[in-house]
Amino acid sequence: MQDLLTLLGIDVEYVRGEGNTLYFLDETGHEVPVIDYAGGYGALVLGHNHPEVVATVESFLRDRRPVLGQASRQPAAGRVVARLNDIVRREFDTAEPYYGVFSNSGAESVEVALKHAEFDRQLRLRALLEEIAEHVEQAREAVRAGTAVVSDGTDGDVEALAERVRAANSAVAARPPVFLALEGSFHGKLVGSVQLTHNPAYRTPFGAMAAQARFVPVDQPEAITKIAQEERAVLLDLRLKDGRVSVVERDFPQFAALFMEVIQGEGGIKEVTEQQARRIRQACAALDCPIVVDEIQSGMGRTGAFFASSLIGLRADYYTLAKGLGGGIAKTALTLIRGGRFRREFGLVHTSTFAKDGLSLAVTHTVLDVLEDRDGQAYRQAAERGARLVDLFRSLIKAHPEVLKEVRGKGLMLGLEFRDLSGATAPRLREAARSDLLGYVVAGYLLRAHRIRTFPTASAVNTLRFEPSIYLTDGEIDALERALRDVCARLDDQDEEAFFGPA
Amino acid sequence: MQDLLTLLGIDVEYVRGEGNTLYFLDETGHEVPVIDYAGGYGALVLGHNHPEVVATVESFLRDRRPVLGQASRQPAAGRVVARLNDIVRREFDTAEPYYGVFSNSGAESVEVALKHAEFDRQLRLRALLEEIAEHVEQAREAVRAGTAVVSDGTDGDVEALAERVRAANSAVAARPPVFLALEGSFHGKLVGSVQLTHNPAYRTPFGAMAAQARFVPVDQPEAITKIAQEERAVLLDLRLKDGRVSVVERDFPQFAALFMEVIQGEGGIKEVTEQQARRIRQACAALDCPIVVDEIQSGMGRTGAFFASSLIGLRADYYTLAKGLGGGIAKTALTLIRGGRFRREFGLVHTSTFAKDGLSLAVTHTVLDVLEDRDGQAYRQAAERGARLVDLFRSLIKAHPEVLKEVRGKGLMLGLEFRDLSGATAPRLREAARSDLLGYVVAGYLLRAHRIRTFPTASAVNTLRFEPSIYLTDGEIDALERALRDVCARLDDQDEEAFFGPA
Repeated sequence: MQDLLTLLGIDVEYVRGEGNTLYFLDETGHEVPVIDYAGGYGALVLGHNHPEVVATVESFLRDRRPVLGQASRQPAAGRVVARLNDIVRREFDTAEPYYGVFSNSGAESVEVALKHAEFDRQLRLRALLEEIAEHVEQAREAVRAGTAVVSDGTDGDVEALAERVRAANSAVAARPPVFLALEGSFHGKLVGSVQLTHNPAYRTPFGAMAAQARFVPVDQPEAITKIAQEERAVLLDLRLKDGRVSVVERDFPQFAALFMEVIQGEGGIKEVTEQQARRIRQACAALDCPIVVDEIQSGMGRTGAFFASSLIGLRADYYTLAKGLGGGIAKTALTLIRGGRFRREFGLVHTSTFAKDGLSLAVTHTVLDVLEDRDGQAYRQAAERGARLVDLFRSLIKAHPEVLKEVRGKGLMLGLEFRDLSGATAPRLREAARSDLLGYVVAGYLLRAHRIRTFPTASAVNTLRFEPSIYLTDGEIDALERALRDVCARLDDQDEEAFFGPA
Repeated sequence: MQDLLTLLGIDVEYVRGEGNTLYFLDETGHEVPVIDYAGGYGALVLGHNHPEVVATVESFLRDRRPVLGQASRQPAAGRVVARLNDIVRREFDTAEPYYGVFSNSGAESVEVALKHAEFDRQLRLRALLEEIAEHVEQAREAVRAGTAVVSDGTDGDVEALAERVRAANSAVAARPPVFLALEGSFHGKLVGSVQLTHNPAYRTPFGAMAAQARFVPVDQPEAITKIAQEERAVLLDLRLKDGRVSVVERDFPQFAALFMEVIQGEGGIKEVTEQQARRIRQACAALDCPIVVDEIQSGMGRTGAFFASSLIGLRADYYTLAKGLGGGIAKTALTLIRGGRFRREFGLVHTSTFAKDGLSLAVTHTVLDVLEDRDGQAYRQAAERGARLVDLFRSLIKAHPEVLKEVRGKGLMLGLEFRDLSGATAPRLREAARSDLLGYVVAGYLLRAHRIRTFPTASAVNTLRFEPSIYLTDGEIDALERALRDVCARLDDQDEEAFFGPA
């Protein structure tokens, strides 16, 4: 990776960052500004070194407030969760409370969701097995008392039947949970979360380590029902009715959760539609399968609302939050879990040394202050700035239809997809396109020639990501316009020297 | 958990922290100092808000240096790894370089080790399968050319034999990796790492989610060999020799890594001896199984050396570092991987938005400055302060043999084990001991009556942990002595009112 960055001239060392600007030093030691449209892979909703976030950290340290005081009272944690509940109430129009579990990175917040979903599934499973055990006991007693007979084919032997039920159920109960995720998804790269990340390059080397996810095409939510049929397993139960003991089947809770982004980030800035979301929810409801909406990148205001999912009316059972929650300085993450799903006992089995630290909590409060200020001016700003970028991209697409394909996303989470140029006449451009490197080549040119920083999305390499902060200025948009017009004109002209230097 | 803290009166809110002291406010708004022997579960090697660490963060922010600048050149990362290599060279007397992968928490650094170990195992497996495929091709050609015959029982049919090899190998190759860990271990609580954490309360609810670890009793390293026999699997290969093609067995690389702490932290501050470590290393070498030494809690100088493992001469293939690496303020972690094991391709499949951020790297440099200053004064100080605490604990054990059992650990990673008081005559003490809560009861008393903060270790609840910073003063040790003498006297006297209030 470092080699590729060097090759493309992207391996500059930044020495200062403010707002949307990063600075590196030229050979004479002078600062050169770069407009940062990469935005810390979505973490810089408020830009680099936001003055209020910096002031919060400075005053926290000046007062020598404690960063790490585990197992003491931390009212700031409860206040963060309460404020997020206010936002949930407003954006989703619900009164149901959400509980919060803090962690240290987006991937960790997904791991927390994975663990809690499985914890909940195990408790549901245990309750079901206990209910079955009671039924078996009742059947046994009834047969012993002579008030019932065994009607299934075990020669009337209730003990044999009980043993059959026990053996069948214990085999089924040990089956691993099934997690569902959408094709194109990115949910992190730890041992559990990487199984939900669709890109096979990231996922398959680690496939033997953990329970596999089943992937659902975003535009075919009906696949969930098909997967449910394939994965279906049953527990055996005994029914005592009209003096007869018979075996009945009960659905085994196989599905622990479905994970989804409502705008896929690393997958290429792809939006889930309101209709798709509704159909996914219906399919999951039929399976009693909770939905985890991963708002790690789309959340915290970037799309014009705190929760991007609120814009398509999808209220989730779990939300994972990170990136922007740390204001570009702190590392913090939070998994919100709907009251109706939350298991209090989870707090006894899941903790983290660094999570819920005083400094991150103070930063998150400031982030929420800034976002919620003036009745949510930040959200409106993200929507308005984003609309301006979309207008720009649309006009570019119109002007250069051979080079640009489409713009996707909402607010300040935008992807501009380039056409597949693997049929280009210029040999080095063609070669780069065929090696999936054209996005990086364009990014390198944007940085070297126009001092604009962006990257392709990780798993859709022809899509450049644009995730600047909400403080994006008109001038920064104008600079991007000049840069992209230049890129498009040169690609139109197959001017490969511009991108690669003299042959 | 919060309920328990409230019950014990531990749920104070700390408003300030410096050195070994945390402060809360009493009813009149005055600061009450508490001596912190819990030390952020080991993260506060340098205490709360160490002035140099604070100054580093302040100057970093004042200069508006960039926190998040992913995919740019970050020479500070290379310098951190280089400095750690200097320390490895000094403490382990080796010239072999270690590569570093940054992450955000101790648990993440374990997940990185898990993933890399499996990545490496998959590459070793693939190389072996390719070698076998070549042998099969050679055998095929030799039989076709009439220069060899099949000597195994497949009626001389080399195609049938090749198919038998292929089918057998593809079944074996899909087997999950086996990770080894020591009984009593704690390696974190994410989906992969929790499988290595021995305490069943933390681990078993999530057992269906990921590959299971096999646990080895610390004092019976020979169990590794026994596990190896139980888990042994073979790949089939073809040997062409003296005009005959025969089937031979090759060892399947089942074992991805053995994880161990050299001083188990949450497991009760238990040391692995030099001899045990040597025998573990021998057993692992025989299996080509790399050793991951988890120094998340024991590392960064607490035990009298940067790496506690260096004190027993155990050089590892991987080290996981976190906690103290962030100087009590930053959240950062690092997995070091020995050059001979490191796979460069891993960098393409594993990344993290928050990892390797500028702020954490600056903090880690300062932590290393402080630790390495004056030829490692910090390490000597940890050893000397720790020896004073051990002397104190030993004299207490001598004076109260019915109450205290033993002291374990090294430097400032110490555990003081209380005797099992479930036979106490005072009913509330007895009940607390029987519910595994006596350690918490004592911790509550220490805080309320003596303003001393400590906790039992997570999985050995009769052991109180003592992990203060290296700046522990004589006065703080004296205060601890008074407090513990009081506790012991009251336990000797079965004075349960002191701990629980009037009956």
